[in-house]
Amino acid sequence: MARIAIDMDEVIADFYSNDLKVYNELYETELTISDLNGQYVSEFYPETDKIMRYIRNTKGFFKDLPVIENAQQVISELMQEHEIFITTAAMDFPNSFDDKFYWLQNHFPAIQKENIVFCGNKSIIHADYLIDDNIGHFRNFSGTGLLFTAHHNKKIDHPIRMENWNAVREFFQQQTV
Amino acid sequence: MARIAIDMDEVIADFYSNDLKVYNELYETELTISDLNGQYVSEFYPETDKIMRYIRNTKGFFKDLPVIENAQQVISELMQEHEIFITTAAMDFPNSFDDKFYWLQNHFPAIQKENIVFCGNKSIIHADYLIDDNIGHFRNFSGTGLLFTAHHNKKIDHPIRMENWNAVREFFQQQTV
Repeated sequence: MARIAIDMDEVIADFYSNDLKVYNELYETELTISDLNGQYVSEFYPETDKIMRYIRNTKGFFKDLPVIENAQQVISELMQEHEIFITTAAMDFPNSFDDKFYWLQNHFPAIQKENIVFCGNKSIIHADYLIDDNIGHFRNFSGTGLLFTAHHNKKIDHPIRMENWNAVREFFQQQTV
Repeated sequence: MARIAIDMDEVIADFYSNDLKVYNELYETELTISDLNGQYVSEFYPETDKIMRYIRNTKGFFKDLPVIENAQQVISELMQEHEIFITTAAMDFPNSFDDKFYWLQNHFPAIQKENIVFCGNKSIIHADYLIDDNIGHFRNFSGTGLLFTAHHNKKIDHPIRMENWNAVREFFQQQTV
């Protein structure tokens, strides 16, 4: 049995598409993810950076994010054999606490509330694996970092990359052989 | 330099006295801490357990807790030499997130938000020391647990006990000699 820490945004929750939806509404555009070329909306249009940060920190933003494909099924399978923690850098957006907690209870009701961690610096996490879309969080992490593919990290080099949740399933099936 | 994780309730925030204040208001009593004989109000009057849990989970309950004596001064000194994280089991009372974050920003502004952790099960914390009033959190904790004296744990046996924040200062002064 391993202890697996799993990030929320861009790993189980589709944060990126919500940014895009807000942007398209505000600016009456019809941008798609492929138009962004691996950048966040706020990087693509630097003048909107502060606006997007403000919007992300309004209550409700994190409440209705779609679930990343197959995350529910694969995490449910992993929970049969492993200890699962959700570790999310909620401190970036302090108004997101309630939304994130609600979202997890709603979409991942089998994850006990004791196994949810809101943190900033993930070097505080004591786990065997961390599945995250941000390689910055692997710095000083004591376990193995698994980079989960997101639009913004496709060009980043990292020893172990998970293209999607099916790849995560296969990775842990191989670990237990 | 050590990494020191510090609990909130009954270690830096005086949770206990707020329980008592609420109880005295609701029941028109004048109980003092010594009347409770080391128990929580809700244990002392078991019929009020659900009521007290409900009240603790209302927004605002955790916002105005007094600071435990000398916590600010000693933590500020420890921050000169050590890495400090606040690790609080906020998941017991999910409505407390905003209050706890506000309280920390208000009373401990020098603690970066990246160094605040809301969790349930503290075995997920990767630190050298954990200062906590609840020995349950030392179970499976990978570092050294320092039991911070609170009314409810006075009779509990634990190898390293901190009577107050001056004792914490002395403990870490001795560690660095």
